[in-house]
Amino acid sequence: MEKGVKVLILMGSDSDLPVMEEAAKALEQFGIGYELTIASAHRSPARASALSSGARDRGVEVVIAGAGAAAHLAGVLAAETTLPVIGVPIDSSPLNGMDALLATVQMPGGIPVASMAIGKAGAKNAGIFAAEILSIKYPEVAKKLAVYREAMAKGVEEKGNKAGRTSLGE
Amino acid sequence: MEKGVKVLILMGSDSDLPVMEEAAKALEQFGIGYELTIASAHRSPARASALSSGARDRGVEVVIAGAGAAAHLAGVLAAETTLPVIGVPIDSSPLNGMDALLATVQMPGGIPVASMAIGKAGAKNAGIFAAEILSIKYPEVAKKLAVYREAMAKGVEEKGNKAGRTSLGE
Amino acid sequence: MEKGVKVLILMGSDSDLPVMEEAAKALEQFGIGYELTIASAHRSPARASALSSGARDRGVEVVIAGAGAAAHLAGVLAAETTLPVIGVPIDSSPLNGMDALLATVQMPGGIPVASMAIGKAGAKNAGIFAAEILSIKYPEVAKKLAVYREAMAKGVEEKGNKAGRTSLGE
Amino acid sequence: MEKGVKVLILMGSDSDLPVMEEAAKALEQFGIGYELTIASAHRSPARASALSSGARDRGVEVVIAGAGAAAHLAGVLAAETTLPVIGVPIDSSPLNGMDALLATVQMPGGIPVASMAIGKAGAKNAGIFAAEILSIKYPEVAKKLAVYREAMAKGVEEKGNKAGRTSLGE
Amino acid sequence: MEKGVKVLILMGSDSDLPVMEEAAKALEQFGIGYELTIASAHRSPARASALSSGARDRGVEVVIAGAGAAAHLAGVLAAETTLPVIGVPIDSSPLNGMDALLATVQMPGGIPVASMAIGKAGAKNAGIFAAEILSIKYPEVAKKLAVYREAMAKGVEEKGNKAGRTSLGE
Amino acid sequence: MEKGVKVLILMGSDSDLPVMEEAAKALEQFGIGYELTIASAHRSPARASALSSGARDRGVEVVIAGAGAAAHLAGVLAAETTLPVIGVPIDSSPLNGMDALLATVQMPGGIPVASMAIGKAGAKNAGIFAAEILSIKYPEVAKKLAVYREAMAKGVEEKGNKAGRTSLGE
Amino acid sequence: MEKGVKVLILMGSDSDLPVMEEAAKALEQFGIGYELTIASAHRSPARASALSSGARDRGVEVVIAGAGAAAHLAGVLAAETTLPVIGVPIDSSPLNGMDALLATVQMPGGIPVASMAIGKAGAKNAGIFAAEILSIKYPEVAKKLAVYREAMAKGVEEKGNKAGRTSLGE
Amino acid sequence: MEKGVKVLILMGSDSDLPVMEEAAKALEQFGIGYELTIASAHRSPARASALSSGARDRGVEVVIAGAGAAAHLAGVLAAETTLPVIGVPIDSSPLNGMDALLATVQMPGGIPVASMAIGKAGAKNAGIFAAEILSIKYPEVAKKLAVYREAMAKGVEEKGNKAGRTSLGE
Repeated sequence: MEKGVKVLILMGSDSDLPVMEEAAKALEQFGIGYELTIASAHRSPARASALSSGARDRGVEVVIAGAGAAAHLAGVLAAETTLPVIGVPIDSSPLNGMDALLATVQMPGGIPVASMAIGKAGAKNAGIFAAEILSIKYPEVAKKLAVYREAMAKGVEEKGNKAGRTSLGE
Repeated sequence: MEKGVKVLILMGSDSDLPVMEEAAKALEQFGIGYELTIASAHRSPARASALSSGARDRGVEVVIAGAGAAAHLAGVLAAETTLPVIGVPIDSSPLNGMDALLATVQMPGGIPVASMAIGKAGAKNAGIFAAEILSIKYPEVAKKLAVYREAMAKGVEEKGNKAGRTSLGE
Repeated sequence: MEKGVKVLILMGSDSDLPVMEEAAKALEQFGIGYELTIASAHRSPARASALSSGARDRGVEVVIAGAGAAAHLAGVLAAETTLPVIGVPIDSSPLNGMDALLATVQMPGGIPVASMAIGKAGAKNAGIFAAEILSIKYPEVAKKLAVYREAMAKGVEEKGNKAGRTSLGE
Repeated sequence: MEKGVKVLILMGSDSDLPVMEEAAKALEQFGIGYELTIASAHRSPARASALSSGARDRGVEVVIAGAGAAAHLAGVLAAETTLPVIGVPIDSSPLNGMDALLATVQMPGGIPVASMAIGKAGAKNAGIFAAEILSIKYPEVAKKLAVYREAMAKGVEEKGNKAGRTSLGE
Repeated sequence: MEKGVKVLILMGSDSDLPVMEEAAKALEQFGIGYELTIASAHRSPARASALSSGARDRGVEVVIAGAGAAAHLAGVLAAETTLPVIGVPIDSSPLNGMDALLATVQMPGGIPVASMAIGKAGAKNAGIFAAEILSIKYPEVAKKLAVYREAMAKGVEEKGNKAGRTSLGE
Repeated sequence: MEKGVKVLILMGSDSDLPVMEEAAKALEQFGIGYELTIASAHRSPARASALSSGARDRGVEVVIAGAGAAAHLAGVLAAETTLPVIGVPIDSSPLNGMDALLATVQMPGGIPVASMAIGKAGAKNAGIFAAEILSIKYPEVAKKLAVYREAMAKGVEEKGNKAGRTSLGE
Repeated sequence: MEKGVKVLILMGSDSDLPVMEEAAKALEQFGIGYELTIASAHRSPARASALSSGARDRGVEVVIAGAGAAAHLAGVLAAETTLPVIGVPIDSSPLNGMDALLATVQMPGGIPVASMAIGKAGAKNAGIFAAEILSIKYPEVAKKLAVYREAMAKGVEEKGNKAGRTSLGE
Repeated sequence: MEKGVKVLILMGSDSDLPVMEEAAKALEQFGIGYELTIASAHRSPARASALSSGARDRGVEVVIAGAGAAAHLAGVLAAETTLPVIGVPIDSSPLNGMDALLATVQMPGGIPVASMAIGKAGAKNAGIFAAEILSIKYPEVAKKLAVYREAMAKGVEEKGNKAGRTSLGE
């Protein structure tokens, strides 16, 4: 994989940054280049459209969008590109992210958005899922993902050994 | 009020037409001109943006948008105009319109959408609410609204007299 | 636009004031006169009815109502006037404002209420939406809204430039 | 108990009649006099207020209100009387009555509404609950309720005997 | 009204006491005698049944039951008496009281429970609703309720005058 | 396993029978004896309590309870026995069984109910789960369960072979 | 009951430990041997499968699984054993455990999971329910459960006596 | 793109076939090879694991999984491969697919599943999203997607022209 921006990470507001950092961190773990910036579907629609519609030509291969409440960002970006768009619903309203989840995932037939879980777990998985997409083209990413998985399984086992205990009863 | 298109009614799909007809019917009742057409936030974003951003200059004074599922249409239109945008959530997915409601109403601060109820009742009210908005500028609409209200109250009373009954017990 | 009270902001309880201040602040930003006070649909129904039914004659052109839980205030005010009534659901019960949202937005056909989002974002948008309504009559408000939108888009871009970053990968 | 209207049954629309008939039927079963009619919190607010505020003076002792969607009727009636008001949420919107339930039950402190279950079960129980209220004043109603309960328990037993079966396994 | 225990207040656990105190306080405000104690539908079913089934004979006229989670208490008490039973859903589980609300209000036809709102507002209203029930038999309670209502309306007006303000715009 | 009633299947109403038959059918498949009858937590509380409290002494080893709406039956039975009680929430109210699910599963600490899925799938699984419980005591039931599982896996594979297809693209 | 591991307690992550300790504590109270460790359905699927599929042969008689979010653990374990599997939904995502509850309880026909309540109450009940299952085979566990129940009922009564009070009114 | 199976479409039951056909149809539209078969996470876990863990070596580049209720299939497959896994929640339980959605989308950090919308719209989008993933590697798929998008936008415009109308008011 040549150096360069492979993944475009957009979010609706700078208050979403602590959540979306998880996506960036995951990409860094796999050595994948990215650009992270802010663009609102509602407050700066032209900026959002332009970033998305020009993405493929700039070499971007995956778009990640994080937004809360009536989270339209991922859908609006998906309407402007045929690259895979991953949506991260953010729990920034009183409804615990249920609004953002439904506004992200319930896309009508024709324009898909791939929704991750609400919040930080979803942002982290957006980064990993972008890596999985790239892995079909770049074998070195596939290898890194395999190593990551193995380490994760081993980590669970170690935690299990450490936290586990046996009681034989009376 | 001069003749002409005062209200722009958009919907995401022609399957939304039976619902959104209620908005048109309400406007006709008050003699208000409108244009009704189809534009999808996702499948035809350029068309949707253009219709909304040029609306004020064409003399439109209110925009009504109906959409189901991840209903982004009203928000996308609101991002392109400072005219009042009324959203009608449509129950066209398995979630009974709860997805469309949250995607319509939970707009972030800065870009309002005025959400009506889910489905036909909401579409009818979108038409009436457009008339209420216009009534602050056109006194003849205010008068028609007052007549409509009075007739509605009288209708309830008549139904009550017809359906009502009294039982004096044993 | 002549000086005077153009918008009536009502709320069900003084505990709703920190939320509803957002509506007042938005109106001040656009130089729009308003009256803000308390009236409960349940605890002071006569007061609420009187404020609403007399509003148009006093020169009011938009009504904003904020309430929590079984939020009936906006509906009760809408029943007494043909002015546009904007409802702000407030999350003051254990149900995170879902109760207030449904009680505000799900109005039956005939008497519309325009629901904003739950909480402070919704209250702010209620003020902006009132300005959008007034903009169809007062061109100076339309101009201020256009300036506000442009500043908002520029603000997003600046935040994007500041918070954004690029990582080229390994 | 003297003959006369003891219970006032109101509903928001004549389409609610098939549901609210269950309340009337239950009252007839206990020989309790009632008046049933239509009054909408939104479309005929003056009629609704008048019916409720004058109820105690006309000898009414319990008010039952059935409404769907943003079901404000019970709350609006409760605001106008200190008689016990029983609310029946009706599932007449796409949200299966969840909107009507929350709009009925989540009353703010100070003005109670006693919510029953959604739909016909709730309407039937509204009639029985009215009888339970009256039973604290009219011993003959208490007796009828005791008989009704006993018959109900016996009915369950009989159905159990009829529908029940035993299989001893292999 | 003679002195004595007119209302029985039961709750499922002593952790519900801070909520259910609101019911007791409301009754004290109207000078109504009550007994408040703990009985669990699940952990002490015999105690709960006995308290309810013997209530009418001990002169009790209204039962109030508060419980959280799978809140069966009100229903279990209602099954053992024909006195009016008021249920207060308490938000003591992670589901914000939605579980307690549905388990309280969705009673099957035949055995009504009158549900109040979730939490303290509901507990306070349970006390007031008990007073409203008693008011059909004891005119002095009806008078106190009327005074209470008037004071409440006046209180809203005073708060409105104090918190309210007018801004005339630019 | 000796012949006899090992499982007690109770339901709140005879309208629940078509659902609860699935539990009986599953038990028959494993040759397990059962008694099936009707007992309502609310309409026949004494009958329900007696059936449950005497179950262990009659040789019953598992109790299955199906109920809809405010589904208290499983909890009420669990309060009267230390046998394992399995609850089946039934979707017999407008809320699609969400009320029955929460009223069944959200039991407070101390008195467990084992909830299955809503409706027929849950009733079938209640029968299978009862067999799994009995399998720790009766090895022949464990053997039958193993055979059942294997057949199920094979059935999926066969369906996959039959319904599956491969398309090699263009 | 011979000494040994009768219950296998698994959880998806070590962050679930404070919740799942409640299950272990309950088992200790009844003198029942258990093994507690960590295994993730997603991050260590082989480990999870192996622990479950080999459980019966190692003498385990009940499996308890706690997991949050898309809580697949209990279902994945149930797919690998015919022992009774108890699921504990944990509220570790923004959705308050509703996601974990539905992912645990809504198992398709054929492979049952017995769901407990969300969070600590559910974990405690998982331990007690395991004891109830074991009680059909080990009479000493049945005895301990009976003692536990009696103590619990007495505890409620004592708390009722302590916290209870009577007010005779004016 | 060479001929062969690029996408593996799995579903939990043959009753899911009418929904998942939409995914196959979409792939056919883009000339992409696929294998479609049945594998249940619960009833045939070994089969599901084997199909997923061996997929990359067989040349598969994307996995699509459709399941209803406690929809574990996509998560279970994702645990066995580092290929991108797309989940389609199916509304086959009384909860309208909300259970399947949450069980599919709320994956914990580390193992992503890309959730589409509930039902047929989601299945169709799963096929299109798979094409979007493949488009980063196979330029001919990117071209077909661009053509598809353009046709879709034109289709909306045509429908708009056909269904649209203008009314100039009175």
